[in-house]
Amino acid sequence: MFENRKKEWLRIAHSLKPTLQHETVRPVSGLPGHALTENDSVILDFGNHYVGHLTLKLSSQGSHPDAPAWLSVKFCENERELGETLEGYNGWISKGWVQQEQIHIDVLPTQYSFPRRYAFRYVKIDILALSSKYQLVIEDAVLDATTSADSSRIAPLSGDPLDTAIDRIALRTLHSCMQDFFEDGPKRDRRLWLGDLRLQALTNSVAYQNFDLVKRCLYLFAAVSDADGRIPACLFTEPEVEADDTYMFDYSLFFIPTLWQYAMASGDQETMEDLLPLALRQLELADAQFDPCTHLIQDSDVLGWCFVDWALPLNKQFCAQAIWIYCANAALKMKPDPALKEKIALRKEAAIRHWYDSKQHLFLSGAARQISWASQVWAVLSGIAEGEMASACLNAVSACPDALPMVTPYMMHHYAEALCQVGHRQQARQVIREYWGAMVAQGADTFFELFNPDNPDESPYGSPVVNSFCHAWSCTPSWFLRSGMLNE
Amino acid sequence: MFENRKKEWLRIAHSLKPTLQHETVRPVSGLPGHALTENDSVILDFGNHYVGHLTLKLSSQGSHPDAPAWLSVKFCENERELGETLEGYNGWISKGWVQQEQIHIDVLPTQYSFPRRYAFRYVKIDILALSSKYQLVIEDAVLDATTSADSSRIAPLSGDPLDTAIDRIALRTLHSCMQDFFEDGPKRDRRLWLGDLRLQALTNSVAYQNFDLVKRCLYLFAAVSDADGRIPACLFTEPEVEADDTYMFDYSLFFIPTLWQYAMASGDQETMEDLLPLALRQLELADAQFDPCTHLIQDSDVLGWCFVDWALPLNKQFCAQAIWIYCANAALKMKPDPALKEKIALRKEAAIRHWYDSKQHLFLSGAARQISWASQVWAVLSGIAEGEMASACLNAVSACPDALPMVTPYMMHHYAEALCQVGHRQQARQVIREYWGAMVAQGADTFFELFNPDNPDESPYGSPVVNSFCHAWSCTPSWFLRSGMLNE
Repeated sequence: MFENRKKEWLRIAHSLKPTLQHETVRPVSGLPGHALTENDSVILDFGNHYVGHLTLKLSSQGSHPDAPAWLSVKFCENERELGETLEGYNGWISKGWVQQEQIHIDVLPTQYSFPRRYAFRYVKIDILALSSKYQLVIEDAVLDATTSADSSRIAPLSGDPLDTAIDRIALRTLHSCMQDFFEDGPKRDRRLWLGDLRLQALTNSVAYQNFDLVKRCLYLFAAVSDADGRIPACLFTEPEVEADDTYMFDYSLFFIPTLWQYAMASGDQETMEDLLPLALRQLELADAQFDPCTHLIQDSDVLGWCFVDWALPLNKQFCAQAIWIYCANAALKMKPDPALKEKIALRKEAAIRHWYDSKQHLFLSGAARQISWASQVWAVLSGIAEGEMASACLNAVSACPDALPMVTPYMMHHYAEALCQVGHRQQARQVIREYWGAMVAQGADTFFELFNPDNPDESPYGSPVVNSFCHAWSCTPSWFLRSGMLNE
Repeated sequence: MFENRKKEWLRIAHSLKPTLQHETVRPVSGLPGHALTENDSVILDFGNHYVGHLTLKLSSQGSHPDAPAWLSVKFCENERELGETLEGYNGWISKGWVQQEQIHIDVLPTQYSFPRRYAFRYVKIDILALSSKYQLVIEDAVLDATTSADSSRIAPLSGDPLDTAIDRIALRTLHSCMQDFFEDGPKRDRRLWLGDLRLQALTNSVAYQNFDLVKRCLYLFAAVSDADGRIPACLFTEPEVEADDTYMFDYSLFFIPTLWQYAMASGDQETMEDLLPLALRQLELADAQFDPCTHLIQDSDVLGWCFVDWALPLNKQFCAQAIWIYCANAALKMKPDPALKEKIALRKEAAIRHWYDSKQHLFLSGAARQISWASQVWAVLSGIAEGEMASACLNAVSACPDALPMVTPYMMHHYAEALCQVGHRQQARQVIREYWGAMVAQGADTFFELFNPDNPDESPYGSPVVNSFCHAWSCTPSWFLRSGMLNE
């Protein structure tokens, strides 16, 4: 489907490729005042999180260097990473993501420019080898930092110091992720994921307002939709624009609210109309997952068939049904459709009938009737639960210690949004101040991909060494703080 | 001294910088026919020793690569190095010399060109990390090999298979060391040492006959002579031409026979006359080391004050006296000088009187009156021992099991030359066939810096991992075989 449109969609995406802004940055501390010998170690601190290319200006002291200098160089997004090691790492995400290099310097003095881009605040340099005849001098370290976020478009918030700190760090997170496209994380995966894009676009709409970048990303996804019109969960832009072979039920559907939200924020009706048939196609494709008699979605045991949150034990059946409804509601806003409206109503009723435990005031999920925070949040956001029922299930899950918890800032965003939707704006503010505030207390310059306040070492990958500490989906506190959502 | 000449000498050296010849080389074996996964390991064999820049053509199989490929790449001059590791290496030569890199590949397919030059036959590639979603394909490996040796100028020797093998490998050694200048070793030190240059120039004169390269190197040394006119043991050409701060008694003096040998081989009288005053200055400077009454050279306990051989326990006093005489004899050939002739005679007599043990027919050295092979060799080469005495001391040392042995091909060259000088040409041939032939038997493609047939792990540096397996001073068998020296 849409085969005759894809070339044009790709052309539009390419035409919107941003010219990156460059900033030259030097370390605020750590440049050693003395010459270094073998086994010395230095930590440069650039004072904030940046994304870009580093150049080291190196010279020598002592005799003319008579052997190559061999350095290990590690780029870290936060201070904790400095002490982490790959020894024994056996997680399922590639070690290749860890930003560490070994380099040899044959001729001194020199300016060594790292060929790769890194996301970091700290640079740890270990001198693996010199000869005894000379010492190494790090004269300077110059970072060419890039972004497609125009900071001149926003002023810092004033007011409560924690709120302003959270906003500043959330904006920095988005700032570092805004490059040629909205990256999920500039350390990892450096890729365009639809779930991340949706939240980035939301925050962008009240901050940097680079609407062309959102439009570019929408067209990138459109251009790589498959022969059935299905939109992949993520895509690659190098060496050529190409879909990842990962498809997730919720991410494909999120193209719909992302398109709608973009059109609302930018006023760009033309793009909305151009991409609407593709957006609506995602609803049709999702229909195959529903039982036409019970109006219930099929469960699946395929890992990641529907993302929702980074919680492996989470049963996704209820959330998937709710997310379909959430996205269908967004579609209705773009184009009235009585048949769709009727379908939504049937699927809402079925969800309540089948999964609502009216004694506990909780929505259950799956054959094992799992109780999770995620299910209550999506019950509210989808409108399955409205009014009293909506408040009741959010209250009930707070009082249910066995409910499966939320593990990502991505899911926490939806929780805070659900609280706002039921009018618990003060509680939403508190959630943001407690959860994101705990990252502030840990010295975050950007917000993390994963954060469990009770276990800083938590990682779904086997070790935090491959975690991303600047992750797009964590940037939404600025949306809450700047959109007026939290105001009573 | 010579301050008004050095700029011009440097200009001449620069004007003779060679245009390197390029050859495109591909592996003869090892390119895997299948895609590679994490922890896979591959050894590419280029079939011979080369010096140059490698490009890997890489692609992927499976899903679109979703994480960087992280590779360890080790360049080895010979097969034994493939199994060596830096773990626990604590020698005094820098680990920085070991030709191993770690690289990350962010985008596939790609052509990755290593920025550094390597000397190698084998390339070991270990896949440190991929993701589980894709496999790495090494499509091709293309080496841009360089040399300033013109192979079209020489034909292979015919005759005895061992002799021809030794000649071929010796020429390959020289070939790999001939780059912008005569390097001592293209793996290590990649530098111009006078002791190596002398033997390279000798072999070059009967092989590639790139006399301009010899001339360039003579002028490079001239240009970096110090304020007293002293020539350093070695020099650097990058980032600017500069003397190393290493001065060795014998290496400074070897400028004289190197200049004379160059003039004889090339017929370039002009260069000889231009540089003769500087050459003679080395004799004058050496005079400070001699006792004017006894005509004996002072001993020294400074490590490396006079090189002779890579044998730390070797006492250098006698050899230093002999090398002065050897070089003074070369000076006489360039310019008659009765006073110098007289001085040579006095120092010869003094050496015999003081160090010759006429009962043992051996020359001793130092306060401890050490017996070494090196002393006998230099007694002969210098002419201190002539006729019967010369044969006698070479015979005597063979029969003296306690004599300190020779440890380098450099010293073995001088032994073979001394044998020729006393007419034992058959024995010289035998030495070459046994010593260099043992390296051939070990599968050498080039001859090593250090070789003890009884202990392949021997290294003066603490581990063979930093040894050079293609070393200029080992190339002289071709001089013996091609100059007619060995013919009765």
